[in-house]
Amino acid sequence: MCYPLTINSLLVTKTMEATLSFFFATILVLSTSHASPSFPSQNHRLLQHSDGAATSAANHHGHKMSCPSWRLAVETNNIIKWTLVPEACEDYVANYMLGSRYQEDCFAVTSIALEYAKNHTLGADGKDIWVFDIDETALSEIDYYSQPDVSFGAKKFNETKKNEYLKEAKSPPLAAVLELYNNLLPLGYKIVFISGTSESYREYRESNMKRAGYHTWEKLVLKQTSQHGTTSFIYKSKKRTELVKAGYRIIGNMGDQWSDILGSDVGNRTFKLPNPMYYIS
Amino acid sequence: MCYPLTINSLLVTKTMEATLSFFFATILVLSTSHASPSFPSQNHRLLQHSDGAATSAANHHGHKMSCPSWRLAVETNNIIKWTLVPEACEDYVANYMLGSRYQEDCFAVTSIALEYAKNHTLGADGKDIWVFDIDETALSEIDYYSQPDVSFGAKKFNETKKNEYLKEAKSPPLAAVLELYNNLLPLGYKIVFISGTSESYREYRESNMKRAGYHTWEKLVLKQTSQHGTTSFIYKSKKRTELVKAGYRIIGNMGDQWSDILGSDVGNRTFKLPNPMYYIS
Repeated sequence: MCYPLTINSLLVTKTMEATLSFFFATILVLSTSHASPSFPSQNHRLLQHSDGAATSAANHHGHKMSCPSWRLAVETNNIIKWTLVPEACEDYVANYMLGSRYQEDCFAVTSIALEYAKNHTLGADGKDIWVFDIDETALSEIDYYSQPDVSFGAKKFNETKKNEYLKEAKSPPLAAVLELYNNLLPLGYKIVFISGTSESYREYRESNMKRAGYHTWEKLVLKQTSQHGTTSFIYKSKKRTELVKAGYRIIGNMGDQWSDILGSDVGNRTFKLPNPMYYIS
Repeated sequence: MCYPLTINSLLVTKTMEATLSFFFATILVLSTSHASPSFPSQNHRLLQHSDGAATSAANHHGHKMSCPSWRLAVETNNIIKWTLVPEACEDYVANYMLGSRYQEDCFAVTSIALEYAKNHTLGADGKDIWVFDIDETALSEIDYYSQPDVSFGAKKFNETKKNEYLKEAKSPPLAAVLELYNNLLPLGYKIVFISGTSESYREYRESNMKRAGYHTWEKLVLKQTSQHGTTSFIYKSKKRTELVKAGYRIIGNMGDQWSDILGSDVGNRTFKLPNPMYYIS
């Protein structure tokens, strides 16, 4: 049988490629082994076996976890406190982040958020705020994460290298979030950015935000030295509670980590952007 | 160019079909229209246009939401209080629910849960419990939802028909959850099922659970008449708090709805199973 190559079949071939990699190249399972003593019960190491698929030394039930299932489990907060993208899912995550699906998934979230924001009636006192995280939310660090020695979160985190990248202050905006930001301002929302980056990077971070198109904000909150060592979950809850005590109403709250949107004073509605590259507690 | 049909290419053709339906047949966008006055700001009606894609009458930004993005947004609790599967995603949801991906996604969640359960040290007092929802968690209602006039949640909910189905008490178990259940019992966990079904259906529900393989439980909690009209979120929180006050420790809590696993006394860890067919507040 012959299939003529048309523009559509070229598209299909490209899609097939990605789909095949889901189904045949990236099969893996969870192991009971624990790589890091700081995350004793939830850090799953994945073992690649010689038959191309992966099986676990300890899982006697033999269930295989595909990369799409791994990603869904990450996005729904079922897999927590993980440190690295499973080796078997490195190509899958790269394809997801560089393909159109990631952008589509982000625009889906911001479209829903904008519909909600438009239908909310703001107070007259200018105290209605929208909280955004910065990295993989307001800004995209794809230029950093796509480097071979970072490999979309599949290689061990290098803090020095990451800090050098932050000082370059050249992250582009996440397109969907910049568009939402530009729509929220004329509706009357004040914008608050809360990031886990150290206060000592303020100059670089503010410069990056302006360069990316975020020209105004009510507050841009960074982590003070006294809060170093605190989890993002605790730190961000504390900062949101301070905002509420100062009379602000958090109407929307958007981030790529569950620690951005769970905890205290999360806001009237929360929005989770996708991020299969790293996990922040 | 010719592509010989092999077993693999047959598989690819099948996959292509599904993939094509994602990309070309199921494009849609959110509308600002609201179908139900009880959910004024989050109930998105989706409009199908004559060009095959769908566009919104009110969204001037023209972003299209694909069915995979819609499903991810549903699973991550970004789209809330929705009443129907978008018409454009009817086939997509059917393919997901009947294909292997749904089962794989469920087994991924229960594998993670079992690893966690094995690594938790239980008390000696027999008060460590695992809470499960029933429908689309312990049991699968796929036989009901696959009927043409139900159409995987794309057709308007028919309470009478659904209640007749419940009285048949013939739902099979969700395979992944029954396996987890069978692994939790010898570890020493007591099992508590909490369902939003009315107490008046106890006979049918208990019969169904036993028939499906759930032979023992600590409690099987159903909704009393006095709680009718209460949201599942409030009702389930209340029931969990009662368990904690009675001295139980909720070590794990698993459901297919966010209202199963958010609220008060959610437990030490929560697990969200996939369900793109319906939303319960």
